[in-house]
Amino acid sequence: MTRRSDSLPRRALSARLTPAQLLALVYAVGILIGTGLLHLPGVQRAGGAALTSVDLLFTATSAICITGLVVADTGEAFTRLGQVIIIVLVQIGGLGILTFGTLFAFLTGRRLNFSERQGLVAQLNALSVGGVLPLLRAILTYTLVTELIGAVLLSFRFVPQYGLGEGLYQAIFHSVSAYNNGGFVVLASGMSPYAQDPLVCLTISALVILGGLGFLVQLNYVSHLLNPRKNRLLVYSRLTMLTTGVLLALGTLVILVLEWENSKTLGALSTPGKFLSAFFQSMTPRSGGFSTVDIEAMNTATIFTLIGLMFIGANSGSTGGGIKTSTFAILVGSAWNMVRGRGELIVFQRRVLGENVVRAGSITTLYTLLVTGAFFLMLATNPKLGFTHLLFETVSAAATVGLSMNTTHLLNDPGLLILTALMYLGRIGPLTFAVAFSLRSTQRRNIKYPPERDILVG
Amino acid sequence: MTRRSDSLPRRALSARLTPAQLLALVYAVGILIGTGLLHLPGVQRAGGAALTSVDLLFTATSAICITGLVVADTGEAFTRLGQVIIIVLVQIGGLGILTFGTLFAFLTGRRLNFSERQGLVAQLNALSVGGVLPLLRAILTYTLVTELIGAVLLSFRFVPQYGLGEGLYQAIFHSVSAYNNGGFVVLASGMSPYAQDPLVCLTISALVILGGLGFLVQLNYVSHLLNPRKNRLLVYSRLTMLTTGVLLALGTLVILVLEWENSKTLGALSTPGKFLSAFFQSMTPRSGGFSTVDIEAMNTATIFTLIGLMFIGANSGSTGGGIKTSTFAILVGSAWNMVRGRGELIVFQRRVLGENVVRAGSITTLYTLLVTGAFFLMLATNPKLGFTHLLFETVSAAATVGLSMNTTHLLNDPGLLILTALMYLGRIGPLTFAVAFSLRSTQRRNIKYPPERDILVG
Ligand SMILES: [K+]
Ligand SMILES: [K+]
Repeated sequence: MTRRSDSLPRRALSARLTPAQLLALVYAVGILIGTGLLHLPGVQRAGGAALTSVDLLFTATSAICITGLVVADTGEAFTRLGQVIIIVLVQIGGLGILTFGTLFAFLTGRRLNFSERQGLVAQLNALSVGGVLPLLRAILTYTLVTELIGAVLLSFRFVPQYGLGEGLYQAIFHSVSAYNNGGFVVLASGMSPYAQDPLVCLTISALVILGGLGFLVQLNYVSHLLNPRKNRLLVYSRLTMLTTGVLLALGTLVILVLEWENSKTLGALSTPGKFLSAFFQSMTPRSGGFSTVDIEAMNTATIFTLIGLMFIGANSGSTGGGIKTSTFAILVGSAWNMVRGRGELIVFQRRVLGENVVRAGSITTLYTLLVTGAFFLMLATNPKLGFTHLLFETVSAAATVGLSMNTTHLLNDPGLLILTALMYLGRIGPLTFAVAFSLRSTQRRNIKYPPERDILVG
Repeated sequence: MTRRSDSLPRRALSARLTPAQLLALVYAVGILIGTGLLHLPGVQRAGGAALTSVDLLFTATSAICITGLVVADTGEAFTRLGQVIIIVLVQIGGLGILTFGTLFAFLTGRRLNFSERQGLVAQLNALSVGGVLPLLRAILTYTLVTELIGAVLLSFRFVPQYGLGEGLYQAIFHSVSAYNNGGFVVLASGMSPYAQDPLVCLTISALVILGGLGFLVQLNYVSHLLNPRKNRLLVYSRLTMLTTGVLLALGTLVILVLEWENSKTLGALSTPGKFLSAFFQSMTPRSGGFSTVDIEAMNTATIFTLIGLMFIGANSGSTGGGIKTSTFAILVGSAWNMVRGRGELIVFQRRVLGENVVRAGSITTLYTLLVTGAFFLMLATNPKLGFTHLLFETVSAAATVGLSMNTTHLLNDPGLLILTALMYLGRIGPLTFAVAFSLRSTQRRNIKYPPERDILVG
């Protein structure tokens, strides 16, 4: 791990702390600062529900970990100042994860092989991205341009509705919230009036999906489109795009079929509205957190599908959460391989390394232990709330999705604190463990143990 | 895969069918024959609920796949003839899985390394087990002796209660049902009157745990106890015993703490009775299926713990189900390794092969896809039944446990057929996939693909 020829410096970051520790520290400090800011006078609306310190800690964590779970309606509970603090926290949380996620892809020597790293470095250099600060600047620029386009599109709807000032504010807020997979909404009426509005739904969907792809995949695609010969599409980009597409399509289909006649969800909508809403509800668990339909009114089979989609989540190093599309794809591919009796996993004519399969399994195991452990505690501390409601809420927090079956405001303080820890761990955990594993697994062990073959599994 | 020096012949079994196909076929034929037998006149009690063909298919599958889920009380719905058919199916199902499980451990060259295979073959030979039929005979003898001891112990309780003939019948039925992790009960009063009876609870617990260890582990322990120097304890035996013990202790603790004051479960019992019942409810999900307490009345956190224990299950090649203790231990150990930044998994001073970690991950993935897919269908076909009830029922069927939150008799025919398929796949699936993978993964691929390192996970 001492290659020095890269144009991305790694010693600046890892001078004292490991990158994983730095990430954990940055988000912890961000939560503390955010909580402090939300305690300022003039942040809470006078007529709204008086929020406790636990509520504000929860809100700040939800913002900086770009989750979107709320104990009270953001527009009702917070003044314009409070809302701006929240959306700035969302933006910082989003930029942080995009930057760390991209850096980590380079820091972990094993995650990108040398030739591909060189290729990506070239692609980054073409954008004048040659160090941490230039990379951050590139991500910032790219993010702001995307959010600006999103805001312009949304303003076509919101300015006529709310007037120029308020309309622009709403457009910017929700564009930022969407691209960062933030899930915060400050529309007085919520999202449901826009269930059949293609402009709002598709703009927000595009922002959420782009944010959920992560910077590397977006950069790779843009570079590829500009110069297909020079910049080949990474296997990682193709795999994650394929998985994203398949999950979107399957989710839309399931929701359409199960909710078509449910008068409380899709039943009341026009046929195009049904398709639009089904697509939107299929997109949002990964990990947008916006909803135009009351999830609590859905069939339990639909709700379970949403829980599964939330658990899988979006791409590595993106503003989305979950175990990540590539992790899921590798696990399923590897399992299918076993069914077919094949020894190696081949993806787009490339062999997936065994260590990547092991890592995918380990991340999923850790994530599952985290979610099940937290869910157990949620059941034990909030026994009056339903099993389904708490499971949905727990997975939503761990995968930093922000969808809720109208449960968050009913939780007691222990429940809120569990979810606070879960949003934090769900945000930094997978990236932290992945990078910690990659960096340290190259160290040699001193003791060599004989191999053990005689362990039966299954 | 053409070593011919083993004393266990593999060509006899795999002449036309692969061992995995043979296993699948045997259990499918067993289900059909069992269903046919249960259609005979004189099998159903005249006064009981008239069971349909779907009910009888479900019951036969539940018996031969040693699950224990029932659509109606076995003692009430079936005559003595019907009960004997059921317990014989349970015994055949149990012997089948013990035999196949033991054979597969030898058939799969990679699962036991050569020196350990030789050691085990020696241990088998010491018991005059040198081929399929002698092995089956040894397993049969060992099983019948264990069941006889269990029946004798149980008869001390049941003979005074029911008289000699009926008492012996009850003792034999429940000893067979327990050792095979069958979960069928024909006591007129059910198991709950014995909640505080150490003789019944501990005898049944011992039988369930022994059956759940599998023949190889039991053989290895017995050989080791008889001659510790010559017969070393396999790493597999130590790992599975440790995991079994830890899960039993943790489960007991959780149930004690959460149910101590629940008047509908442990609350009404004496303090020793609380400990005994907590231990019994912690033992039974893996995968006995007996219950002395109403699970439906438990706290949701306890129910979720039971679901987790059912999912993990017992040992490979045993009469228990689930993903198996060794699979779980390897996944958790491997994930913990990642947290600690270690590259290799060391268990009892032995290095676990990467392929075993991958296999554990793949089996868990397949199992999870199976359970979640079936659960989705259960929710879609039985929307009126609760989320928790259906989840519990689904996992119970897949892990061939047989516990229920009093749900089975409420299911419609599609629900019963889904569970029928699930019991079958849950019984043969993990073993089938494990052996198929092991046998075929030694085959070389013709095409060599370049390795791909640049896949980000987590
Ligand atoms: K979110
Ligand atoms: K059972």
